[in-house]
Formats: sequence, C-alpha cells, structure tokens
Amino acid sequence: MREIYLDYSATTPVKQEVLTEMLPYFTGKFGNPSSLYQKGYEAKEALSLARARVAELIGALEKEIYFTSGGTEADNWAVVGTAKSRKSKGNHIITTKIEHHALLHTCKQLEKEGFDVTYLDVDKSGLISLKQLKDSITDKTILISIMYANNEVGSIQPVREIASIAKEKGILFHSDAVQALGNVPINVKDLGIDLLSVSAHKIYGPKGVGALYVRKGLTITNLLQGGGQEYKRRAGTENLPGIVGFGKAAQLAGENLDNHITTITELRNYFLAEIQKRIPDVDVNGGMVHRLPGNLNLVFNYVEGEAMILYMDMKGIYASTGSACSSASFSASHVLAAMGLPVEKAYSSVRFTLGDFTTKDDIDFAVNEITMIVEKLRSISPFDKEHDMETAQNCNCPA
Amino acid sequence: MREIYLDYSATTPVKQEVLTEMLPYFTGKFGNPSSLYQKGYEAKEALSLARARVAELIGALEKEIYFTSGGTEADNWAVVGTAKSRKSKGNHIITTKIEHHALLHTCKQLEKEGFDVTYLDVDKSGLISLKQLKDSITDKTILISIMYANNEVGSIQPVREIASIAKEKGILFHSDAVQALGNVPINVKDLGIDLLSVSAHKIYGPKGVGALYVRKGLTITNLLQGGGQEYKRRAGTENLPGIVGFGKAAQLAGENLDNHITTITELRNYFLAEIQKRIPDVDVNGGMVHRLPGNLNLVFNYVEGEAMILYMDMKGIYASTGSACSSASFSASHVLAAMGLPVEKAYSSVRFTLGDFTTKDDIDFAVNEITMIVEKLRSISPFDKEHDMETAQNCNCPA
Repeated sequence: MREIYLDYSATTPVKQEVLTEMLPYFTGKFGNPSSLYQKGYEAKEALSLARARVAELIGALEKEIYFTSGGTEADNWAVVGTAKSRKSKGNHIITTKIEHHALLHTCKQLEKEGFDVTYLDVDKSGLISLKQLKDSITDKTILISIMYANNEVGSIQPVREIASIAKEKGILFHSDAVQALGNVPINVKDLGIDLLSVSAHKIYGPKGVGALYVRKGLTITNLLQGGGQEYKRRAGTENLPGIVGFGKAAQLAGENLDNHITTITELRNYFLAEIQKRIPDVDVNGGMVHRLPGNLNLVFNYVEGEAMILYMDMKGIYASTGSACSSASFSASHVLAAMGLPVEKAYSSVRFTLGDFTTKDDIDFAVNEITMIVEKLRSISPFDKEHDMETAQNCNCPA
Repeated sequence: MREIYLDYSATTPVKQEVLTEMLPYFTGKFGNPSSLYQKGYEAKEALSLARARVAELIGALEKEIYFTSGGTEADNWAVVGTAKSRKSKGNHIITTKIEHHALLHTCKQLEKEGFDVTYLDVDKSGLISLKQLKDSITDKTILISIMYANNEVGSIQPVREIASIAKEKGILFHSDAVQALGNVPINVKDLGIDLLSVSAHKIYGPKGVGALYVRKGLTITNLLQGGGQEYKRRAGTENLPGIVGFGKAAQLAGENLDNHITTITELRNYFLAEIQKRIPDVDVNGGMVHRLPGNLNLVFNYVEGEAMILYMDMKGIYASTGSACSSASFSASHVLAAMGLPVEKAYSSVRFTLGDFTTKDDIDFAVNEITMIVEKLRSISPFDKEHDMETAQNCNCPA
C-alpha cells in the first residue's frame, strides 16, 4: 500500500547519506573516544567533526555543543541544571503553557522542590506576549525557558526579543529548538541565547541523540554524573554512530535550509488551499505568519481527530493529533487549550507536518482521501452541526 | 596493519546480525512508537520484542525493563531515583570504593545534598566483606548499590549474599551489571535484585542504549521528565534502532553464554600463562576465582602502563590502563588503590579484556609484541629494580 507520511514533527527517517556516514562506526570504527590508542583517536576525531557540524548549524562554537541522548534530556538538563546551579540567586522560572512535556513536567517537578514557575499564556496564534513576560520577571527569576517553535501548531516565538529582555535583566534564557532546527535559520550568537536544546531525529538524523548548546563561560550543574565525557559535563560513553549521524544531518540541514523552507512552505500552503477548496468547515489552528514551514494543524469540525487518524491510517496516510509523545495519553492538547480552543475543536484537530520527502503528488492523494474520510465521518457524526457543538460529551475521548 | 583489540570492556563492535536487525529501523521502519498508526505500531512491536529479549537475558519480566541512553544513565537513575523517593525513610546509602564513576560521582553529588554514603573497602582480590556491609547498615540505610563485576579487575561480588542481606533489612539493592552482562549468568529473580543497570555496547550492541531493571511493584522517582514513554518512567523518543540492536545483542549473548564463558576463560588463561612464561616480574591484579572470563589486569613492574599502551598502539594492539572512561584523566586507578596496590604498581598496570572476536593467534601475536615492548621499556626504565621501587617520583604521571 502507498504510504504518505505527514508526521515529520513526530520523527523523520534517517537520510541515506546520514546512515552511510554512520555505518562504519558500528563495526570497524567502533572505538571508544576516551581510549588512548588509534581506534580511540579516530573515534574522537569523528566526534569532533560532528560537534563542529552541529555547532555550525546554530552559529555556535564547537566547544559549546554537548551531546545528549535527545531533546528530552537536553531540556531536562537545561532547566534542572540551571535551577540547581542558580538556586542561591533565586527560585523563579518563567516558561510558557505550550512547552513540550519535557519542559513542563520538569518544571512541575521543580515546583515540588520549592521553585516557583510562571507559565505564560499564548494568544490564538500560539504566541506569547512580551509584555506579560516582562511583567512576570521578579528579582528571584533565574531562568526564562521558552520554546523556539511549537511542536503542535508550529508557532515561532519572538526569540530575539525574549533573549534581549533576559539579557537586560541578567536572566538566563533557554530555548527548546527541537522543532525549529533545520526549519528556520538559527544563530545563537546573533540572537543572544544562553542554552538551546536540539535533537537529531527531527532533522533526518537518528533517534537517541540530541545536544544542549551551553554558551561559552556558562556553567550549569550536570544532569548525568560519571566519566569525563563531553568536556566533563555529560557522562556516559558517547553514542558515536548516532552523534556522527547527527553531525551529517546537521550539515545537510544547513546546506538545504533555504530550499527546504521555500519548498515545504509552498507545499504546505498548497495542501491547505486544496483542503479548504474541497472540505467545508475546516479551521486552521494558529496563525500563518510566525509558523514552521511544514506545519498545518487543522480543525475538521464535527469530526473526531482520533477517528480521522485511524481512517487515514487505513489509507496509508500518517498524521497525528497532538504530539506523538502525548498521543498515547488521549488527553486534550494542552497547547490548543492554551490557545483558547474549545475542547470539542481540540478533539477535532489533526496535525499534518510535511518534510523533505513529501511530494505534490502525496498531497493530492492525501487531500482526496481526507476529503472522503471527512465526508464519511461527518455523515455518521454524533455531533449536531445545527446545535453548534454545545457539548463534546458524545465524544469517545476521556476528558 | 594487523589490529588486535584487547579492550572489550571499554566497548565492543556491533555484531553483524545485530546491525542487520537494526538497519530497517533507521529508514523504512522509522516510525515513532508513540504514534497511533501502522508505522507507530510496527515500531512499538519492535520495542516490545527488544524489551522481552533483554528481560530474558537477566531473568526479568518484560515490563521490568526500562530503556535508557546507557549504563551511566541507568546508574544515575537507580541511585538518584531511590534517594529522592526514599528520603523520608532515610538518607544513608552504602556502596563500594571500586564502583564505576557513574555511581561514585552520583553518590558524591548526593552527599552535597545531605545524604550520607558509606564506601565499602575491598580486599586485594577486589571483593567486599559481607561483614563490613552488615556492620555498615543503619536504620537510615535506604540503598545498597554494589556492582556485579568490576570494570578494571573483573572481580565478581557475592551478589546473592548481598541481596539476601539487603532483603532481610528491607533495604533496596541496586547492582551495576554493565560489565557482568553477557559474561556471567544473571537472574535477578533468583538472586533477589531490586535494580540492575545494563548496557548494550558491552555485549556487541550499539552505543547509546542501556536499561534499568526495576523490580515489579517498585517505584523510584524518574530521572528524565517528559513524554509518557517507557511506561511513563523514562521520557524521550525511544532510540528504536539502538533498542532493537540491544535486544538482538541480548538474545545472542544468552544463546552464546556458556560457550562464551568457556572459550574466553581458556583464552584468557592461556594469555596469562604465556605472559608469565615469557616476561618476568608480572603480577596479576585481583584474584582468579571470582573474576570475569575475559579480564586480565597485569602489573608490568618497572614499566609505565601509559607507555605500554602507546607502544602497543604502534603495533596495533589495543588495551588500556584503568577504564576507558577515566583514561583521559591520567589519575591513578581508584580501583587498584582500593585493593591496596601501591601507586607505582598501579601506574605499571595494564588491563586486557578479551572478547568474542579474540583468537589464539591474536594472543600469540600480542604476547610476542608485548614481550619485546616490556623488554625495551625496562631497558630504559627510570625505575631502579634494585631499590625496589621505593618511589614513583620519576614517573611522568601526575599523582
């Protein structure tokens, strides 16, 4: 069966060039980079090249990149590490209501441990208010952690302005750029970011690898203790094939960035136009201006998003409600809720995310199938269009 | 140049069968296991099979295995998670002086946070005293963490007896089995272990994957917060190709275990006999009874271990002083120091670790080269044999 993958924000396939570069490090070049012999040195060199490549993609120095097991570990480390190392200065953290759970759950845990956390609102475009940010700052604020771009609706925050506010007040600024990397130009020096989380498997690199950028001169408490790897900041034998893959994926992402943005944006806009042409009563969640190129989050009114996913799956079309990480939890999206979307519209939402292997033909096929699926589901929908969806109680999903 | 790898405790190459099984999960089967469509389900099934295979190797249930980014994360999680979740019961942890730094540095960090840690001594065989263990237990003791087998000298601790003592006193028992896995039979149920750390890259699986076994019914605080992966206990998109590789490596390790032990032990003993036949003044660090099959840690008296490593490297023979993780630190081995070895003997020590690809021919070649290297180094040694190495001050190594 034909497969049309429209869930690139959940994860991406590893590109062939990336896998090719990784392969020798599983077998022949399997040395431990800490070992003091040739096999160790060649591993160490590969590690250094990968680090330089990831650094280049975000405008950082090689020594500012610390490899982790993924975006989640990078997010946890940034927040916990800052909290632990700065607690004598203050116990207040500012973040947003629409962060990834790696951030939100870490903040919830810190609240149990005596920290105060402000969760900024977002507007219906999924963007924070800089005024609310400024008003939230106290003399106890040690960290502002605001994601670069959102994983569900693709909203891109005013990172430069946030960094400037943070810098003016002498507060550290961390940004989760897992979704932004490879989709928008990022330059940490130019923007003035202190800490930045990134992940390989969202940019056609392997799963299980990420990195935390830590600005030169900045020290935060380590999350993982042990051997002296990663300049003594992140213990554990380096996942060398994975890191090599991340490096190659970063290099490709940098080379392809302009073209990627143009192509994916056009395809995404075409997708939206076709959907709106063919299917009535479809809303777009979030704005179209400050938005990731490949992201489209749509409300198919009077239809359950989960049902859409299942029907599309039967046709080989892969998309998601919310993020993959929370798909299994079946709770309504905290992001859409924060944007003020009524719960019934949240449950009617589907996220499509396009990537480098998406073609116009894929989109045409998908639009055709989606049109038929929506018609079918609406014909059997328990929602009463006439009564304007006053209640979502008929929905199968738990509240 | 011929390469003779004798550092299997540092890391192992990925076996071809393992890599073959991993490959589809980088490209075609790249789905996120949390996704609610076919590509997600096939990923989830692969995850489940890998979990079952790792569980089987240690006699655990599938649901007791939580994948991590490696042994270091598993060790950190076991100790920090227990400390955080049990701190209302007590603040005392018992471990040993010869643990991996992932354990020791985590304990040092906990000491800063108000925990008391007892570091048990070891004898010259690298084994703890059960009496000292019992005597160290207080009514504040919440955790005993003692490694299954040591990474430098291969000493295998009396794990069953330790587990029994812990159980009797109602104290949790964690064991770092990173070096033991695939080298000795392990059955957590039979032994009565509560928490066990394991890693893939020491058993011919990929780097960047490990697991923590957590006994059914036992809950410890999570180390990484975020998505609901790993039964909501370890957040972060699963490193699926790595996990699949760990599963396959675990299956192979289980199938080959008896043969592996017999073969490697014979080769190791042959290696030792040949060395002792050819080179005078060589001591063995640790005992030969409770020892990992492939481990040989030798003192080449009057010679610097680092110099040996470099000369062997030039001949394509790869071994290490201490562990790979601490190789770069150039400090004397904390394990050999705990065993009572004088510092000059510690600096004259070299660890050889044999593995599945080591042949008798490799050993013969290595013994020849090592014999010549030791002769050469001794001929230019600053150590004065006559004066019985009273001082190690001529040694280049920092104290």
